[in-house]
Amino acid sequence: MVKKKLRIATIGQGFMGKAHSNAFRQAKHFFDLPFELELALLCGRDQQSLETMAARWGWESTSTDWREAVSRWDIDVIDIAAPNNLHTPIALAAAAAGKMIWCEKPLANTIEDSARMVEAARGLRTLVWFNYRRVPAIAFARQLVEQDRIGTPYHYRATYLQEWGNDPTRPPNWKTDLAQAGSGVLGDLLCHSIDTALYLNGPITEVSAIQKTFAQNRAIDDATLALARFGNGSVGSFEATRYATGAKNRNSFELHGSNGAVRFDLEDLNRLEFTDATGPRNLQGPRSILVTGPDHPYWSNFWKPAHIIGYEHTFIATVADFLFALDRGEPFEPDFGTAHRVQLVLDAVARAAASGSAATV
Amino acid sequence: MVKKKLRIATIGQGFMGKAHSNAFRQAKHFFDLPFELELALLCGRDQQSLETMAARWGWESTSTDWREAVSRWDIDVIDIAAPNNLHTPIALAAAAAGKMIWCEKPLANTIEDSARMVEAARGLRTLVWFNYRRVPAIAFARQLVEQDRIGTPYHYRATYLQEWGNDPTRPPNWKTDLAQAGSGVLGDLLCHSIDTALYLNGPITEVSAIQKTFAQNRAIDDATLALARFGNGSVGSFEATRYATGAKNRNSFELHGSNGAVRFDLEDLNRLEFTDATGPRNLQGPRSILVTGPDHPYWSNFWKPAHIIGYEHTFIATVADFLFALDRGEPFEPDFGTAHRVQLVLDAVARAAASGSAATV
Amino acid sequence: MVKKKLRIATIGQGFMGKAHSNAFRQAKHFFDLPFELELALLCGRDQQSLETMAARWGWESTSTDWREAVSRWDIDVIDIAAPNNLHTPIALAAAAAGKMIWCEKPLANTIEDSARMVEAARGLRTLVWFNYRRVPAIAFARQLVEQDRIGTPYHYRATYLQEWGNDPTRPPNWKTDLAQAGSGVLGDLLCHSIDTALYLNGPITEVSAIQKTFAQNRAIDDATLALARFGNGSVGSFEATRYATGAKNRNSFELHGSNGAVRFDLEDLNRLEFTDATGPRNLQGPRSILVTGPDHPYWSNFWKPAHIIGYEHTFIATVADFLFALDRGEPFEPDFGTAHRVQLVLDAVARAAASGSAATV
Amino acid sequence: MVKKKLRIATIGQGFMGKAHSNAFRQAKHFFDLPFELELALLCGRDQQSLETMAARWGWESTSTDWREAVSRWDIDVIDIAAPNNLHTPIALAAAAAGKMIWCEKPLANTIEDSARMVEAARGLRTLVWFNYRRVPAIAFARQLVEQDRIGTPYHYRATYLQEWGNDPTRPPNWKTDLAQAGSGVLGDLLCHSIDTALYLNGPITEVSAIQKTFAQNRAIDDATLALARFGNGSVGSFEATRYATGAKNRNSFELHGSNGAVRFDLEDLNRLEFTDATGPRNLQGPRSILVTGPDHPYWSNFWKPAHIIGYEHTFIATVADFLFALDRGEPFEPDFGTAHRVQLVLDAVARAAASGSAATV
Repeated sequence: MVKKKLRIATIGQGFMGKAHSNAFRQAKHFFDLPFELELALLCGRDQQSLETMAARWGWESTSTDWREAVSRWDIDVIDIAAPNNLHTPIALAAAAAGKMIWCEKPLANTIEDSARMVEAARGLRTLVWFNYRRVPAIAFARQLVEQDRIGTPYHYRATYLQEWGNDPTRPPNWKTDLAQAGSGVLGDLLCHSIDTALYLNGPITEVSAIQKTFAQNRAIDDATLALARFGNGSVGSFEATRYATGAKNRNSFELHGSNGAVRFDLEDLNRLEFTDATGPRNLQGPRSILVTGPDHPYWSNFWKPAHIIGYEHTFIATVADFLFALDRGEPFEPDFGTAHRVQLVLDAVARAAASGSAATV
Repeated sequence: MVKKKLRIATIGQGFMGKAHSNAFRQAKHFFDLPFELELALLCGRDQQSLETMAARWGWESTSTDWREAVSRWDIDVIDIAAPNNLHTPIALAAAAAGKMIWCEKPLANTIEDSARMVEAARGLRTLVWFNYRRVPAIAFARQLVEQDRIGTPYHYRATYLQEWGNDPTRPPNWKTDLAQAGSGVLGDLLCHSIDTALYLNGPITEVSAIQKTFAQNRAIDDATLALARFGNGSVGSFEATRYATGAKNRNSFELHGSNGAVRFDLEDLNRLEFTDATGPRNLQGPRSILVTGPDHPYWSNFWKPAHIIGYEHTFIATVADFLFALDRGEPFEPDFGTAHRVQLVLDAVARAAASGSAATV
Repeated sequence: MVKKKLRIATIGQGFMGKAHSNAFRQAKHFFDLPFELELALLCGRDQQSLETMAARWGWESTSTDWREAVSRWDIDVIDIAAPNNLHTPIALAAAAAGKMIWCEKPLANTIEDSARMVEAARGLRTLVWFNYRRVPAIAFARQLVEQDRIGTPYHYRATYLQEWGNDPTRPPNWKTDLAQAGSGVLGDLLCHSIDTALYLNGPITEVSAIQKTFAQNRAIDDATLALARFGNGSVGSFEATRYATGAKNRNSFELHGSNGAVRFDLEDLNRLEFTDATGPRNLQGPRSILVTGPDHPYWSNFWKPAHIIGYEHTFIATVADFLFALDRGEPFEPDFGTAHRVQLVLDAVARAAASGSAATV
Repeated sequence: MVKKKLRIATIGQGFMGKAHSNAFRQAKHFFDLPFELELALLCGRDQQSLETMAARWGWESTSTDWREAVSRWDIDVIDIAAPNNLHTPIALAAAAAGKMIWCEKPLANTIEDSARMVEAARGLRTLVWFNYRRVPAIAFARQLVEQDRIGTPYHYRATYLQEWGNDPTRPPNWKTDLAQAGSGVLGDLLCHSIDTALYLNGPITEVSAIQKTFAQNRAIDDATLALARFGNGSVGSFEATRYATGAKNRNSFELHGSNGAVRFDLEDLNRLEFTDATGPRNLQGPRSILVTGPDHPYWSNFWKPAHIIGYEHTFIATVADFLFALDRGEPFEPDFGTAHRVQLVLDAVARAAASGSAATV
């Protein structure tokens, strides 16, 4: 059987360009994909490193002009891994050209841009790289919610803690430049936490927030903290920061309900802590489940039980799921619509922080 | 040498009455006290159980009228472990009688009452049972702050999570009755977290907050969440709840600064997690310190290294420290003034939650 | 009701003397005891510190000659907390005087002495301070075994790891003197591990072992390691050492069976890890149970759920259980017979280490 | 620059065949390799699944006869991932053909076979897939040993615990067949633990051991336990089992020395616990180092700090290191010689278990 091909142009040659390249190379090794992925074009700003990267990952061609990706007839997918401020112009151009669009998070730097992207992409297949939904432990947490093992939700609590904001040895980066990044941790880290929260606990209706910039001469938020009310009656707290000394990549959440609770930390991505509050009381306690067994999400695709996976596999599973949905003509999430709902919350958080008052989402 | 005696009347025959009785019996066994404590009078509402309790702990006499404690000339200390709404009338009467006053937290149910108590007790020795300051690990955290091992503080994060709010087998209790308790978790749990925060990270200047009542027909807050700005430029988050399924008594905090970080959880009260961010980068990581060694606070008083202590020892160390300060004529904390500063923060939290806007402390 | 009195003489003024004194003072506060304990006589070698200790803990009298304890008609219980080499002579004298005998572990320095003690004490009430049986988590582990929640046992694994063997700041102590201690970690630490193993997993039939002395000029074992076969078909490993850098008091064990597993570490004495292997496979994982709830052993006697206890409470519960058994005329364990069975295993371990061959117990 | 090519034939189409295929595909993406790897030939017993696997991973050709791999002139490397009993015949044939040989562990089923393989491969480049040496945390542990951060070693303690021995849903497998596997956990799991021990703590000189078969009608060891003396004066314990309910893949070790200690568990492969015993005593405690930073082994090759890796990366790093050594003409470990030294220990363990007496390595 000859497989249909999907020719990809990735725009971005940094960390995400590498993570995406890897996913495109690896997906077929772990999943029986309905499409063959071809790494057609890699775009970026530095020609020399583009060539190195293309050679290493097997990209067919390179360009320092992302418009080439949009204009080439042989490209099916525009994969946006460029700095945040380029998401909107690239996506709008790609939509105008009728391409499928895969875009890094956050979707856009303003809620207006985000809305324009959703509108422009109507009818097109889109994907937003909220890759953490495909952490097996998080997909498993979602199953537990669906199976009513959490019950009536009471509390959601999330942090995304990093520590590099304060590191003088770290070279300057677009992530701390307001013009390119649009925000600090709000769009970089909090957006992941919000996506996971919406995925596991449903819509957020109202938020209060504070933001803080610790560094001199920086215009973006080094830290954003928020309190939230969810549509389902539960309450939540969120904290994202680059100044949490000792926390490397602590993307964590906890959800407490009437039947049970779950707790996760990305630094231990192969585990989910689960408390079952329905059994004998003297046996209750948070259990540390290694989410690497034959009955866990995605695991049959990877290795034997308990032979753990890493960060990169979340991208692999994301692209695989997209392709299966595409093949079946089914909807896929997270798409632009999903990401726009995240943006609406981020926007409310920013408004709440600016005003010092609760803001409706 | 004949020791001076201090004759105590405790008002309260519940959990705290037991914890205080134990502290009064045990303090001399672990500390070389300058005073001899005499358990003179135990007051409570139920005569029969008062007698049982008095027999067990060796109280000389009992009464169902707390006024007897205040009026008896042979009583030196009025120790208030009664429901919250009685703190103010008892303390005012005790102050009028010139007694030393030891009072459970929260100091009062309103900021006005709290202020009256401070005023009335001016010139008298007071103690408020924020016993967790004397957890060896928390006292040690304070040492680390003082030694600049945390450095410039960035983030403070605290939770006080319990799960019994939802337990149908639990008998009704004054803690969920607004008239007696004054509030729900605000005065019961959050006040502990705020005291520890002020102790370790200094004054709070502004808060945002939300409160939530989950139970039908309950008038108090089952959960209170707050964001805070500290006078030292750091930001913080607080969460107290009785609906955190899976969390038994998770009174936890974390403080991140430029030099390091500390993390604590009362469920593991003999440990403090410390990250030193000043050493070789490849060796950095949160270390789990068993705060039970010869160089740790209070440890020489208790057992051999690593033979851990429990909850009750925090009361023992509190009363011992009070007596040493009394003997030396030195100030003691936490006293009514300390507790009033906690009340000011709680009051701002309640105002912020009611208004949906940030409130100044 | 006037309670019967039990007048105690403790021989030993060190760490164990303190732990026992505390237990005798505290037992009535937490348990409704059928006997009143009187601290009649404290014996030790140093008169001055005996007096200090007697004053602090309320001992009626002191003596530097333990024979006084045995000869006094008003003493009911001889409590032996002296160096190991004195256990046998004191116990034999106490038995000859018809006293009840409470003895620290190990029971004796040789298997012959141990057998003589058992023989001499026949018909007398005895107790051996294997206090860890009354750690609530260990008593709970025993319940799980009895309820078949472990199932057919496969593996038992225990360590008792300390690090002070290598500490040059530590003053010399009888524990490293062969004449007094009889052995190093064999009698000091391994004996605890063996008692717990027999309690939870039944008789040991055969052992292999190695011993090691790291320190120059020391005649006792700094480390003892053993492999074991249990009568129930499971196999086990044991390790006791004073040279485990980083381990303060890691008295840990793990038991794996066909239905589940338990794991314990004395450094976290309020917790038991339990794996239930009988439920849905995707939900299986070791759960961390805080053994501090209303349905857990001894908990109703101590504090509210999750208000943790310390090391000392294991002695309190031991003496309480002894008194209840005495009152009811029921047998109590661990008694001399129990301890002698531990000695038989220790003796086999020593023989196996000396011979380099497996030894039958 | 045109890279030299290395054409590989892998014999084995199971779990290891997949892990190797992945490594061969991925190595160039993370390392700037001096050779281009070509997946020339995949051999196995089942033609249909061979074709599926070859299509998925891009193998050029397939064969059900491993002799084809040895006889083809265009094959440079024979990679043996077949059942244990085939290691020796394939390796001897490959050596006779002058090929490079990469072989799964254990090297052979008898010490005589292992010795013959070493002899036959003299002068050839060999690799044995003790892949765990390239876990960044283990490589880092080795660095700590070399930097004297452990100091004089006292204790080494290792377990390799799995639980599937007792799983009735698991299909029969050559791993429990004596004829093919040669042994049970001895060659399957303990050999990994021994290799790591030799790597980190040097030669083992003497062992005592017991073995146990729990399953009816099984001829191999379900569990092997050993005690060891190391050449450097330290002592150790080892345990490997397939009956450790609750343990999925607990390949763990701990090394205690005069200056510090390290502790590792494969279920948390991105972490190393390190205790520094040389700093201020009150700050000492095991620190949990996320071995995912810019100064940690292999990390610059993979992802950003704290974006964790999985099991598969250990194979990737192994093949990369082999190629670098090959290119530079330097020795590589672990090779056949390394693996033979592991076999010598395994042989002594088996002898000790059979005889019930200590055996010299």
